[in-house]
Amino acid sequence: MLLPGVSVAAGDPDKGKAKAGVCAACHGKNGVAMVPIYPNLAGQNQAYLESSLKAYRAKQRQGGQAVVMQAQAASLSDEDIANLSAYYSSLQ
Amino acid sequence: MLLPGVSVAAGDPDKGKAKAGVCAACHGKNGVAMVPIYPNLAGQNQAYLESSLKAYRAKQRQGGQAVVMQAQAASLSDEDIANLSAYYSSLQ
Repeated sequence: MLLPGVSVAAGDPDKGKAKAGVCAACHGKNGVAMVPIYPNLAGQNQAYLESSLKAYRAKQRQGGQAVVMQAQAASLSDEDIANLSAYYSSLQ
Repeated sequence: MLLPGVSVAAGDPDKGKAKAGVCAACHGKNGVAMVPIYPNLAGQNQAYLESSLKAYRAKQRQGGQAVVMQAQAASLSDEDIANLSAYYSSLQ
C-alpha cells in the first residue's frame, strides 16, 4: 500500500470548531453539507481531511468545486488544518 | 455560489455494488475506510462522489493519495461512476 508523506498532527477539536464558521456555509453547521455537490465532513477520517485540505491549499486538487476550497484553504496554517480536521472527524 | 458544470446521472446502486469490490480494499466493505488516510464513503453525497471520481479520472486531483485513485478511476465510464456514487451514497 502506498502511503507517501503521511503525517498527522494531533489537532484540537475545540480550536477547530472556533475556526469552522466559514466552513459551515457549505458543509453545514454539523458537517452535513447544505448542497449535495459538497461533501459531508462529519465523522470523516482526520488524516484524510488533513491530506485533502493540504492538497487544496497547495492547489494540487483541481476539478469539481476545487477552486472554492483552494481559496478557503489558502489562509490556513498547518495547525488550523489539524484543528479543523480534528473537529470534523469528532462529529457524528 | 459557484456550481459550474454540475450534472448528476441517476445511477444504479445495485450495479454500483457489483462494481465496488476493488474499492472495498481501502474504503471498506461498508464504505468505512480501513485506513484513516482514506475517506469513508458511506452516506457521502452522490453528486460529490461523482465529481470527485471524475476529477481523479481526469488527473485533476493531485496530492495526498491521489495517484491511487487516478489509477482506479482511469477505467471507469461515466455510467460506472454514477452507479458507484449511487451505491456509496445509499450506505449508512
